[in-house]
Amino acid sequence: MEDELARLRSILAEIADLRGAEAILGWDQQTYMPAGGAEARSHQSAALARLAHERATSAELGRLLESLERSASARDPDGDEARLVQVASRDYRKAVRVPSSWVAESTRATTIAEKVWEEARSRSDFSLFRPHLDRILDLCRRYVSFFPPADHPYDVLLDNYEPGMKTAEVRAIFDALKPRQVGLIKALARRPQADDSFLHADYDGKTQWDFGVEVITRIGFDWERGRQDRSVHPFTGWPGRGDVRITTRVDPRFLNPALFGTIHEMGHALYSQGAAPSLTRTPLDDGASMAVHESQSRMWENFVGRSLPFWECFYPRLQELFPAALGKVSLEAFYGGINRVQPSLIRVEADEATYNLHIMLRMDLEIAMLEGRLSAADLPAAWNAKMEEYLGLVPPDDAQGVLQDVHWSGGMMGYFPTYALGNLMAAQLWERIGRDIPGLSDGIRRGDFSALLGWLRENIHRHGRKFMPQELMRRTTGSDLDAAPYVRYLEGKFGPVSR
Amino acid sequence: MEDELARLRSILAEIADLRGAEAILGWDQQTYMPAGGAEARSHQSAALARLAHERATSAELGRLLESLERSASARDPDGDEARLVQVASRDYRKAVRVPSSWVAESTRATTIAEKVWEEARSRSDFSLFRPHLDRILDLCRRYVSFFPPADHPYDVLLDNYEPGMKTAEVRAIFDALKPRQVGLIKALARRPQADDSFLHADYDGKTQWDFGVEVITRIGFDWERGRQDRSVHPFTGWPGRGDVRITTRVDPRFLNPALFGTIHEMGHALYSQGAAPSLTRTPLDDGASMAVHESQSRMWENFVGRSLPFWECFYPRLQELFPAALGKVSLEAFYGGINRVQPSLIRVEADEATYNLHIMLRMDLEIAMLEGRLSAADLPAAWNAKMEEYLGLVPPDDAQGVLQDVHWSGGMMGYFPTYALGNLMAAQLWERIGRDIPGLSDGIRRGDFSALLGWLRENIHRHGRKFMPQELMRRTTGSDLDAAPYVRYLEGKFGPVSR
Repeated sequence: MEDELARLRSILAEIADLRGAEAILGWDQQTYMPAGGAEARSHQSAALARLAHERATSAELGRLLESLERSASARDPDGDEARLVQVASRDYRKAVRVPSSWVAESTRATTIAEKVWEEARSRSDFSLFRPHLDRILDLCRRYVSFFPPADHPYDVLLDNYEPGMKTAEVRAIFDALKPRQVGLIKALARRPQADDSFLHADYDGKTQWDFGVEVITRIGFDWERGRQDRSVHPFTGWPGRGDVRITTRVDPRFLNPALFGTIHEMGHALYSQGAAPSLTRTPLDDGASMAVHESQSRMWENFVGRSLPFWECFYPRLQELFPAALGKVSLEAFYGGINRVQPSLIRVEADEATYNLHIMLRMDLEIAMLEGRLSAADLPAAWNAKMEEYLGLVPPDDAQGVLQDVHWSGGMMGYFPTYALGNLMAAQLWERIGRDIPGLSDGIRRGDFSALLGWLRENIHRHGRKFMPQELMRRTTGSDLDAAPYVRYLEGKFGPVSR
Repeated sequence: MEDELARLRSILAEIADLRGAEAILGWDQQTYMPAGGAEARSHQSAALARLAHERATSAELGRLLESLERSASARDPDGDEARLVQVASRDYRKAVRVPSSWVAESTRATTIAEKVWEEARSRSDFSLFRPHLDRILDLCRRYVSFFPPADHPYDVLLDNYEPGMKTAEVRAIFDALKPRQVGLIKALARRPQADDSFLHADYDGKTQWDFGVEVITRIGFDWERGRQDRSVHPFTGWPGRGDVRITTRVDPRFLNPALFGTIHEMGHALYSQGAAPSLTRTPLDDGASMAVHESQSRMWENFVGRSLPFWECFYPRLQELFPAALGKVSLEAFYGGINRVQPSLIRVEADEATYNLHIMLRMDLEIAMLEGRLSAADLPAAWNAKMEEYLGLVPPDDAQGVLQDVHWSGGMMGYFPTYALGNLMAAQLWERIGRDIPGLSDGIRRGDFSALLGWLRENIHRHGRKFMPQELMRRTTGSDLDAAPYVRYLEGKFGPVSR
């Protein structure tokens, strides 16, 4: 049994090494790769993905896992080894259902579709993208067909990003949440809006960058085991133990993208930097799910980074760095501005109160397409109708509507809900943290984040992917995922803001 | 036969993809990787090297090559396909001789040895490094033993960097060259030395960088298909078609490292950028040998970049950028300073007249160690004795002596001669170019490098690795590798300099 475990670890380590190499190639592609390298890179990334898939579906791996599962009762059920066998077995059983030919076809199709999507978005011409979306929908339906019938076909896609989560559960949560969010937005619309015009002013790019570095260093980003670069679309990559990379973008005429983007990505990075060393080079050295990951980034970006205590700490320094733009803006006015609520067209720029509605819209449309009730051809009209229904806005063109996100072109159907679920998890964790750390706000006000970071490390980060997301939530908060804490959070916050 | 060729290309393309991915990991390691990522990176690089070696030694590849070699007469002997089969067969026959266990052991040993070497050099303590050098010598001897007996065991090592070159040939060339170089240095030492103190002054780092970019852009570096970054040890990597990366280092108190380093690496990069597109994703998309590569970098760095016409073009601009340091230095004084000859301890800082002696010394010692005439323990004393004999200097410590180069710690025995051979090839090509392009100096003086670059592309670059280095030299210059042009070049140049 020890030999089998050692052999398992060795196979899984090689897969982790290949995935890590792939992550570096992906990071490089979005940061430093010269334009001329795109074609070679697509071959290199595809080769690594293919080799990792080969190894992740090998007969030897299957035999080892089967044998180790039989001896599972001999191991501590919460220990690394029991969980490793469990998680690796789940991964294996999913991976072997997917034929290599589908993986290869999907890689080719999405590589092309991503390029076409870029072109379509820049020309705001959905018709260019439509045939590719059709092909991707077809690939998704075939993917679903490889698995035993689920309660809903969307379950199979969702499981790739939020393991164990069911469509019906997400729907129940969203159905309870939607009327509350819509009501809140309507109520806020009737009140006077905070001024946020000062956020659009001259903000020197390098100073913005340096301030972001100052903030995340203070919070606890470990520069020995991470770095930050620029990219068009900010992201976090973790190509290997001790190497967690965030990116940001800087707009010299708008403070928010770099500031809140940097704090957001740092939230992802702290999660990765906090995994227990014993998980190194195993599939457990990852986040529990996309939603749990997003709970970390959103908590730091919004629950901390858009809170009053946080700015009581950092605002004097920010004013000092940007005297022209902020010298005459009071702390309270600044706080009001960064928390201004206003329905808008673009998801990634949406505020805390409206963000989830962007997600619900996307999930509705994905399900309708998967069920065959909505064709790709009818998607733009359906998008615009939903935007009007949920947010009272109609996009003037497809670039600001149905073409705004990269996900579908990359084949990532079932991903969007995790953003909203992440918001809910963040609120649920935040209530628990508030009970566990009585002086939390005072600490933040002093710029001391050690208690908060310590709590997250102990309860979330160190476990990596050992627990399913729902189990992790139950272990840390005592209850299942629930929308109520997020509603309480929003109402608690946005009552006072616009009063 | 067409099917076999297509299958061969597909296998070789995958190997090229893996090697390209490995190159990106190596580039990243030396440019941006945070310190904490070193351990994970060593596993990732080893995994890619192992997989590439597995594929490069597969039985299927062997069968294909054997069958395609039988049908060789049907193909144009100078065409891509004939050369592809020939080069891939040679690579295959070498690779299958080396057991995977040796590859794995060597990777582990050199990964450790490189770290120990860094430590040993920083503490100038050879005794730390000695056991690792013993182990590497043992690995080298075992490597040699995998091959049929050669004229000299060193031939087997040399062949990895300079295919087809024999130890006896290199010795004959070096034996003819050494007395001429030593005599030249002695003659120069008796004449008054040019002043080069102005090269050591305040040179703003960013301005140095920008000037380097200006120069290599003018020469023809293609930024759509390449980039430049900083690293401690400058190098050129070519992780894939359309993606050639150079690095440089900038010393704000010394002009030479960034200036000549940038031009040197650009020489390597132009070679890679100039390979024919038809060679993409094959083993032919590479340089003919390390010496041919070095002939390109040295030609641009020294034959062009340290020439008077070059500075007639660029010196006014350089003076404009650094008025404090160079405003009162005449063009002639500048030319004298950058061409000052002075025996020195460090190979990478050596001038054109003394450089090859550093190489001869290393080759002598490598051969003595391989033959068992010299033990690792006696190496520092032997090094110092040779330094005194060849250059009249004794290193004050091992950091400035036997520990200065990374090569041995990386297992790269047999590499050093290619630097000197590259100098000789550059001179031989340069004589031919002088005959083929009558107005060469005038072009350079006007900053028009198109004729020179065009010649190199046509005669060297586009062929990639299609021809063995000796064959390439014969095709381009009409004669075998020969030291006489380099001697003529040195005497032609260093006569006038110090007169």
